[in-house]
Order: sequence, then structure tokens, then C-alpha cells
Amino acid sequence: MGKSKSTLYAAAGVDIDLAVNLLNRVKAKISATRRPEALAPIGGFGGLFQIDLSRYRQPVLVGSVDGVGTKLMVAGMMSEHRFVGHDIVNHCINDIAVQGAEPLYFMDYIGMGKLRSPLYEQVLEGIADACKAQNVTLLGGETAEMPGMYGNDYDLVGCINGVVDKDRLITGEQIRPGHTVIGLASNGLHTNGYSLARRVLFEQGGLTVHSQPAELGGESVGQALIKPHTCYWPAIRRAMELNLPLHGLAHLTGGGFYDNIPRVLPKEVGVVCNLGALPILPIFQLIQKLGGIDGIEMHRVFNMGVGMVWMVPAAAAKDALAVCAETGFTAAVIGEVTPGDGTVRIRGLDPV
Amino acid sequence: MGKSKSTLYAAAGVDIDLAVNLLNRVKAKISATRRPEALAPIGGFGGLFQIDLSRYRQPVLVGSVDGVGTKLMVAGMMSEHRFVGHDIVNHCINDIAVQGAEPLYFMDYIGMGKLRSPLYEQVLEGIADACKAQNVTLLGGETAEMPGMYGNDYDLVGCINGVVDKDRLITGEQIRPGHTVIGLASNGLHTNGYSLARRVLFEQGGLTVHSQPAELGGESVGQALIKPHTCYWPAIRRAMELNLPLHGLAHLTGGGFYDNIPRVLPKEVGVVCNLGALPILPIFQLIQKLGGIDGIEMHRVFNMGVGMVWMVPAAAAKDALAVCAETGFTAAVIGEVTPGDGTVRIRGLDPV
Repeated sequence: MGKSKSTLYAAAGVDIDLAVNLLNRVKAKISATRRPEALAPIGGFGGLFQIDLSRYRQPVLVGSVDGVGTKLMVAGMMSEHRFVGHDIVNHCINDIAVQGAEPLYFMDYIGMGKLRSPLYEQVLEGIADACKAQNVTLLGGETAEMPGMYGNDYDLVGCINGVVDKDRLITGEQIRPGHTVIGLASNGLHTNGYSLARRVLFEQGGLTVHSQPAELGGESVGQALIKPHTCYWPAIRRAMELNLPLHGLAHLTGGGFYDNIPRVLPKEVGVVCNLGALPILPIFQLIQKLGGIDGIEMHRVFNMGVGMVWMVPAAAAKDALAVCAETGFTAAVIGEVTPGDGTVRIRGLDPV
Repeated sequence: MGKSKSTLYAAAGVDIDLAVNLLNRVKAKISATRRPEALAPIGGFGGLFQIDLSRYRQPVLVGSVDGVGTKLMVAGMMSEHRFVGHDIVNHCINDIAVQGAEPLYFMDYIGMGKLRSPLYEQVLEGIADACKAQNVTLLGGETAEMPGMYGNDYDLVGCINGVVDKDRLITGEQIRPGHTVIGLASNGLHTNGYSLARRVLFEQGGLTVHSQPAELGGESVGQALIKPHTCYWPAIRRAMELNLPLHGLAHLTGGGFYDNIPRVLPKEVGVVCNLGALPILPIFQLIQKLGGIDGIEMHRVFNMGVGMVWMVPAAAAKDALAVCAETGFTAAVIGEVTPGDGTVRIRGLDPV
């Protein structure tokens, strides 16, 4: 009845049965992410998620897709794949949380040349754990075994969908001169800038993931690079519950300060940031020194220790900082909104 | 102000400015996919899509993620990347349409070692055109340039989200013995089985994409392999408009007949299929002959000319076939539902 192991296909490098077996090992973790709105899987072609209409007046779906980038290659160098699942989930959540959306469900894609255990289960467990931590359902996913592609590498892609009531969308439109810019601390590069970091640290600097340069205070280069992307949704959710006026939020990903903050700025305002209110993490200092990279370039490529910024009226800054502290995030005032042209300037680097 | 071209990052192999420039070239096509529910992009961290609540009583979101697989390598061999965007969009739409969901918005991910033009624009144009053809908004996307990964290859991932009212979900639960199995013709491999096909045709058979074996009647191997995945949503949509009793639909992807049809079968019924009602396309016959592959294996790996099956009451079969014809699809009765154990048997291959 066609149920025999597909041996010819396996010989061509695609093992459907192995994929099913490995998936079964993490099924419990995946099931644990099911919110009540997730309907029992039917047929399994698509995942089903019922919108709870009692909670929304004008529900707006917010979707985003992203990848982990060459941080995956660092994970490969370290044979440590438990964290990249957290990276992709948290990155995706942040990208929609900055618009005020509650993340609802996540779907993953893993592409690899040859399915490998335990790498595969480690990645999926990380995804499921990160989803569970933020009450996000892991609704579906695809694993593509592509012989002849990828070599020993793999790619990891995530897709998030969330919802926000239209009148609670955070748009940036209400940002005005005089508003306060709050930075929420990052724990490292998150998922951006790894191509430059790898080049500077490993090629130019001759370091390995095991190196422990004095600048890192006992931490290895690999440990500093592999830390999972911080998820800021708990702080945003709490601030929204308290109706704090979060007028504009920016997730500092590729493009750093200079490209991300302007994404939410009205054209007639600008932002002036101050360095030093949040520490520039040692890994960034090391990269800057070894690469001979100027400060502007560093702030264009990396988050430099600030993973997210919030723009709030000055009168609300204290409450916003309190919410961050209450939800476990280090945060500080890092700048102010000024009249401007929709761009960001950093005191000490740019003419202010 | 940090607006200079990020030259160091570019030297490390990531060219943010080039990505923006190439994206601008296809902006008009992307904009043309905007449905009224798609809100103006704000900030651009996530895409926004407002659910039209006047159209649904109990909206259930249906999501799916998928890739194109090693069909991308065939596209590479042919330097022909206009169709793979259609592949990923149509594959994703089919995966949720089989549950009755109207596709709403799509997001893409393209991973490559080095951004290349015109490959990149060709892929994105294909995606946008395929979205436009089915009234799907291209809501967002991510292009990841990952130096050191992928070599000359690239990966293409799609994520679709749609909606269906809960009481219109197509679940398979109502499939009963005596129901008719209708097959909708495929135009080729769609997006599955390319690893085996490449091995058989190129490695074992010594063919190239330019070869024109007699079996293909003047078509080249590449032409036969590159045809874009058929999108069956227009037929499903029309059948739903007419309230035809579509009790179970299966999209024949990886796993062919044997693994996909059971995904929607109740455990106490089976399906018996007849070969020959729809033609087995020449490319499948060529692969089978060159690879010395038995019929069961062929029907487990490939769609064999049947891209989708519908299970409907016998009394509705004629109307269902008429809907297929009206919407431009070749379709035929290819089997029947019987008492069974949730599996599929093919007359002439399996004991029936």
C-alpha cells in the first residue's frame, strides 16, 4: 500500500521518515504551545487559529517574516543550536510588538542539505520553548531537506502573526519634539551584524569562538556571540495594559540606530541620542577595536547595547522606565525627540 | 549623519543599499497586490492587514509555510528565475485553500550568499504577479544576504495567511464510502520530488536541462521541470460560492497520493484510485523509465499528473467537474471512497 520506506527517495538524499521521527521527539514541546484559539490540526495542510472576536473591535493582523542570518554559522562553529530557535522567535515577536500587536502564532522553516539529529531537535525545541515563553502557538512549519544545497549549513526562517485593535496600533505619528527616548538594553548582537562580526573577529582578528580576549572579561567570543535575541514583548504588553502612551517603538535590527528609529519618526522630528546611558557591551567594543570601525558605522550595523527604543512623552518616561524594571528589562533614557527631518543624530558622532 | 553607504559592511559581503535599490525596481508590482484590507505600511516592521469583520461570523485564520525545494537548482541550471515566485505563492495558497480558506496575504523570504540582479527582481516579480493573480496581498518579506552560505544557490520560502468561517472549514470529517474522488490535473512536478528527479535525469540518465528526449515530444527536460505550480484556488473558490459539498480536499505535494490523501480521510474510510483517468505526464514516464522506479514509489514521491483531489458525494461529482471546467482546470473522476482504514490504494499497483 505504498507504505514502505521510500528507499529510492532516501537514496537521493531525502528521508521523509526520519523527518517524521525527529519531529515526534519534540511533539510534546510543540503541543505545549497551543493557545485555546488554536484549533485541533485537521488534515495538517494549514494550521488553524480562531480569532477571539470578543477581544477586538477592529482587529488588525500584523505579520512579519525574518531569518537568523549568519549567526547560524556561529552556532555551527560552536555546535550549539539550542539558542537559534529563541533568536528567530524573539526577533519576529519584537518586529510586530513594536506596532502594539500581541503575537498569536508562529511558523518556522528549516532548510538543510541533510537532516541531522540532534541539531534538528535542538532547533525545534528552542523554537517551541521561546513560543511557549511568550504564549505564542507554534502553528506549523516546514523542514526542507535539499541535497546539494547548504553543505553543512542550514537556514532558519520564522513567520509571526499577531493582532492589535486598530485604535491601539503604535504608529509613530504622535511622536513630538520634547518626547523622551528610552533605550532597552540588548544582551549582544541579537541577530544582526554577524557577517561583519565574523569577518572582523575571525578573519581579521584571528580569534576563534573559543578565544577569551581580555576585553570580554572571561567570556569566550562564542559565548558573547551566541546569546539569544531578547524578547521585549513582556515590557510592551505591560505598558499597553497600563495605557502608557507608547507613541513610537523601534526594534534595532540591521541598520542599527540610523536606519531603524527613522522608520517610526514623522518627517518633521528628529532624534538625538546620547551615548553612555546604557553600556556599550564589551563584544561591540572588541569588534570596533579589532576592525578599526568608526562609531557611526558601528551604530549603523549593530544595536550597540540597545535592542529597542521607546518614544514617550517626557511626563510618562518615569512610568515607562518602571514598567521596564518591573518586567525585568534594563532601560534608561538615551535621548530626546527634537525638531528635525526624520533622522537620528548621535551626540559625539554626528553634528548636533 | 550615518547615511553614508555602509562600506565596511558591504566589504563583508552585505550590501544594504543594493537590496533597497533592487526592491525599488519591483515596488510597483508589489503595490499592485494591495487589497483594501491592507493598511498603509507604518514603520515597516510588520505588515498590517485589517480583518473585514462584516464578512465573517467566526473567522478562523489558516496559515502555512513552505519552500520551493531543489526546483530552485533547476531554475539555476536554466538561469530562469521568473517562475519560482509563482511556485511558492501557488503552493502556499493550495495548502490553505484545501481547508476552504481564502488566501489574504503572503510574505516571502529569500536567502542568498550574494544579492544578484536580475535574479532577485525576477523572483520578486514572480511572487508579486502570482499574488496579484489570486488577489493576495504581498504584505512583507525579508531578503537575507549571507556571505559564506548558499554559494551560488538561494532559498525561497513563503508564508501564507488566509481566513475561513469556522462552519465552512473543509475538514474531511464528512467523507463517506461511495463518495467520488475527483482529480485536478497538474502540469508537472509542481514543487516536489526534484531531488529524485535531478538524480535520475541528470546523474543516472546523463541528460541536461537542454536535452530533448523523444518521450517529451519536443519539450526540453528543463522546460518540463520548470513549469510553475498550478494554483487551484479559483476552482475551490467557485465551488464554495456555489455551496458544492467539498467534503475533503488534498493537495498532492511531497508524499504524493499515499501520504497526502490520508491527511483528510476519516480512519474508517479508504480511497481506491484508478490510473489513467488523467494522463500521466511524459516527464513522469521518463523519470520512471530512466530510474527504473516502480509505480508505488512514483506515486509516493510525485503527483503523477494529479495536483489536487476533491472528495464529494457522487451526486455532486458532475457539478464539481463543471466548476473545474468553468474555471479552466482539467479534471476527471479518478477514484472512489470505500470502507477502509484511512489509506489509499491504487488499482493495478496495490491489492484492491
